[in-house]
Amino acid sequence: ETLSLDQYSFVGNAFSFGLAVMASTTLFLWLMRSSVAPGYRMAITITGLVTAIAAYHYLQIMLSWDKAVDVTSGELAATGEPFNQAYRYVDWLLTVPLLLVELILVMKLSQDETWNRAIKLGGAAALMIVLGYPGEVAEGAGTRFLFWILSMIPFIYILYQLVVGLKESIEKQPDNVKQLIHYATYLVIASWAFYPIVYLLPLLGITGGSAIVAVEVGYTIADIVAKAVFGLVIFTIAVRKSAAEG
Amino acid sequence: ETLSLDQYSFVGNAFSFGLAVMASTTLFLWLMRSSVAPGYRMAITITGLVTAIAAYHYLQIMLSWDKAVDVTSGELAATGEPFNQAYRYVDWLLTVPLLLVELILVMKLSQDETWNRAIKLGGAAALMIVLGYPGEVAEGAGTRFLFWILSMIPFIYILYQLVVGLKESIEKQPDNVKQLIHYATYLVIASWAFYPIVYLLPLLGITGGSAIVAVEVGYTIADIVAKAVFGLVIFTIAVRKSAAEG
Ligand SMILES: CC1=C(/C=C/C(C)=C/C=C/C(C)=C/C=O)C(C)(C)CCC1
Ligand SMILES: CC1=C(/C=C/C(C)=C/C=C/C(C)=C/C=O)C(C)(C)CCC1
Repeated sequence: ETLSLDQYSFVGNAFSFGLAVMASTTLFLWLMRSSVAPGYRMAITITGLVTAIAAYHYLQIMLSWDKAVDVTSGELAATGEPFNQAYRYVDWLLTVPLLLVELILVMKLSQDETWNRAIKLGGAAALMIVLGYPGEVAEGAGTRFLFWILSMIPFIYILYQLVVGLKESIEKQPDNVKQLIHYATYLVIASWAFYPIVYLLPLLGITGGSAIVAVEVGYTIADIVAKAVFGLVIFTIAVRKSAAEG
Repeated sequence: ETLSLDQYSFVGNAFSFGLAVMASTTLFLWLMRSSVAPGYRMAITITGLVTAIAAYHYLQIMLSWDKAVDVTSGELAATGEPFNQAYRYVDWLLTVPLLLVELILVMKLSQDETWNRAIKLGGAAALMIVLGYPGEVAEGAGTRFLFWILSMIPFIYILYQLVVGLKESIEKQPDNVKQLIHYATYLVIASWAFYPIVYLLPLLGITGGSAIVAVEVGYTIADIVAKAVFGLVIFTIAVRKSAAEG
């Protein structure tokens, strides 16, 4: 059982949607950058960088999807050029550490604490992605599962840091954004939890065309929440903190 | 009866026209952005974003139109790669909620009212588009009509909100723009009313090549009015309100 024409188009449309969302979020953030106080502009710049990097990779993913299949009179035929899964992982390797850096920067902690947390969380995030990749491209279910387990170790460390490690720093935030920063951390946890679940779908009896649709559309939705929606929350936090600081 | 070469070229030219209008409106709005007071820059940024997103989708639509047909010595032959209608709906899914957000932002209501109205109207707009899509790609007239009815429900809710719900907020606007804001809401109503009519054309006895031309050119004209012309009205409102506020 393989992909139908409808499934193939649907995934292609999801990629185009992802590209449009990421590119427009980038433009919004960079154009609105001057509306936040100078102390938050690095956070907003990086937030836009994350969506810009994602827009570039969605373009590559879309083109690769296009080139992998020939459509003739409603029939799909593999061209022999494989769909390149690596673009997602290259994207994540860059953007996942940056997403954590955004969250830390918008809190405006002391310089030491900022560095310290950025290196620990960013490093763990990079490790998580590197450990996930071999399982994503592996044929066997056993290998996929093994690397899932390995990648879960840094993942759980990150979740722990977000929930417990950042608690004290969040308590020090001004009242008008405390709620919003809590919300931002929950958004990270909820949207990131999606990825290891999507990754396991092919092991849960979803096969063939449906597995491909589930994984590709699932990752795309998760990316939109984790980068674009999250980026707009970061922007709102920066606007409110700028206003509060006068 | 299918598309003639003239019809095929005409639709392709309409798409190229749409792309040029959307892209130039975007550049105009973003280049002129600094001419409005800071409080209106988000409205202008989003207005330009809507036309930017539309420009991207017109490019995709134009390319898909091009790839769907081979022209050899004046004869058209389908390549087998279907023309992708979904780009329009992906575009609308993003831009229709943003168009309503533009209108609300330029009114500069209280923070609560802005959020409240943006979520209600934006949500209804997204629902309207999602409900319209299955009918657009369906083969049967019955299905097309069924989804038309379903999509009309949120559509009528939006019209009602624009006419009745926003009345009070519009009354609070400064005198030099009240007329213009009324005009902007009428422009939304008149241009949006076009879409459900165009959608029904294939059910009204217009068939084959003519139906395709009517639907594609009809939507393109409606898009230009609803996004580019409307965007310039929003820009004018922002300029006048900036001047009035000193
Ligand atoms: C735990 C785990 C994973 C986690 C991935 C995550 C958490 C990705 C987050 C990506 C984001 C946030 C992207 C862009 O916005 C993998 C690599 C799927 C492999 C399986 C185990
Ligand atoms: C009611 C209705 C529709 C309404 C579409 C509208 C109102 C689209 C507006 C688009 C705009 C404003 C686009 C860009 O500027 C559909 C989906 C055709 C389906 C049939 C019923």
